[in-house]
Amino acid sequence: MLPSQALSPAELRQRIRSGDHRGNTSGFAQGFVQCNLAILPAEWAADFLRFCQLNPRPCPLVGMSTSPGDVALPPLGDIDIRTDVPSYRVFREGELVDEVHDIRELWRDDLVTFALGCSFSFEEALLADGLEVRNVTQGVNVPMYRTNIPCQAAGAFAGNMVVSMRPFRAADAIRAVQICTRFPAVHGAPVHLGDPAEIGIADLSRPDYGDAVTLEEGELPVFWACGVTPQVALEKARPPFAITHSPGCMLVTDLRNSRLAVM
Amino acid sequence: MLPSQALSPAELRQRIRSGDHRGNTSGFAQGFVQCNLAILPAEWAADFLRFCQLNPRPCPLVGMSTSPGDVALPPLGDIDIRTDVPSYRVFREGELVDEVHDIRELWRDDLVTFALGCSFSFEEALLADGLEVRNVTQGVNVPMYRTNIPCQAAGAFAGNMVVSMRPFRAADAIRAVQICTRFPAVHGAPVHLGDPAEIGIADLSRPDYGDAVTLEEGELPVFWACGVTPQVALEKARPPFAITHSPGCMLVTDLRNSRLAVM
Repeated sequence: MLPSQALSPAELRQRIRSGDHRGNTSGFAQGFVQCNLAILPAEWAADFLRFCQLNPRPCPLVGMSTSPGDVALPPLGDIDIRTDVPSYRVFREGELVDEVHDIRELWRDDLVTFALGCSFSFEEALLADGLEVRNVTQGVNVPMYRTNIPCQAAGAFAGNMVVSMRPFRAADAIRAVQICTRFPAVHGAPVHLGDPAEIGIADLSRPDYGDAVTLEEGELPVFWACGVTPQVALEKARPPFAITHSPGCMLVTDLRNSRLAVM
Repeated sequence: MLPSQALSPAELRQRIRSGDHRGNTSGFAQGFVQCNLAILPAEWAADFLRFCQLNPRPCPLVGMSTSPGDVALPPLGDIDIRTDVPSYRVFREGELVDEVHDIRELWRDDLVTFALGCSFSFEEALLADGLEVRNVTQGVNVPMYRTNIPCQAAGAFAGNMVVSMRPFRAADAIRAVQICTRFPAVHGAPVHLGDPAEIGIADLSRPDYGDAVTLEEGELPVFWACGVTPQVALEKARPPFAITHSPGCMLVTDLRNSRLAVM
């Protein structure tokens, strides 16, 4: 582990807040939950919250701000959401218009923050069990695909599920189902395994997001609901204003991954 | 439910004991654990017990007699093991020599009884969750196959695992892994899914035991460790004397299936 990776979540957030850490957070503050971020005007927040509750596999809500305008997320740590994420994406009418390291100047007193579980937590549980996680081994982003699995719509938020894929031999795929079932707050059990065409994926070698990984002879592709799903729904809903994290640049929390286990 | 299927385990065992029920027990005393049976001379029992402990997936031990010669299995109900199973198979030197409805005349004071979990319990849990169990739908015995998965040997007891197969669509296969993981005492989670050749099965349409079932387009074959495994090990070990239940004619216990759930 690099010295910087041994930082506590609070120490890492301090470095992010002061501008000393502006890159992705993968591999940092190991053992602690990192979150996908969505920030929306209060007028849109109720529907987005309902979208998360209707689609808990792709949109597992780990925390949200107590009231509009509030920049804290108390149960997740001593957080100022305007400064504590390394990189933010700013959307207007569903279009990406800017990428910034600080949103203090963009902050408004009607903004509501959502923190959603991310696959880093379950990948850590898989690795801890001795399973190989191909995208980690190959040092690339996990491959992600649009599927034909519809989400439940909530107001303007709708769309099909995006999934991430990790290849495993069958016995390891079964073990991965068991491990991830314990973690519903970070996407839970896989939603599909085996034939990609069954969920509308034409070509595994051409992911819609992230990077392709090698699928060895005798391995099954295993698919998990992915946190890109709410981002796609958000882009399609075209709210006048929204902010997300930049890919890989997550909100690092004080919550231990193991505390998300339901048993 | 037929009136005879509504019998309690104790009532059903009474009918078996009196010779009024001599057929298979599938569908009877629903909700209660039915067991595979193995009876061996004490001299062979220690190795068989160790075989079960080394291979808990195919040989999940639910109960055994307290001491050699004892015909009771107190934790499993008011049982006389000599009369309470509808049909027994008698083996000498590993060869099937007789099939009888009562083993009182064969009983010896060195015999040790083993009761092993059976797939009826997890099939009930799958059905209760709304999954279709193909062999139940088609009214046939589950198809079973010899594999290339070696068991851990214990003395003369050894051999490869026998598995049962049930087809499911991927999402249902994932659900089946979750449900069966709760029931380690009745074979637990599947040991394989997908390509049969990976575990040495050449042709799904030609099971080694039981009956073939239909595999629909888009379904995966899902394989569970099977209670025929210890029977095959027992036949190969060729103890001078052994008794098992006849296929489908199980020991019906007072233990509720739900009590086997580990969570």
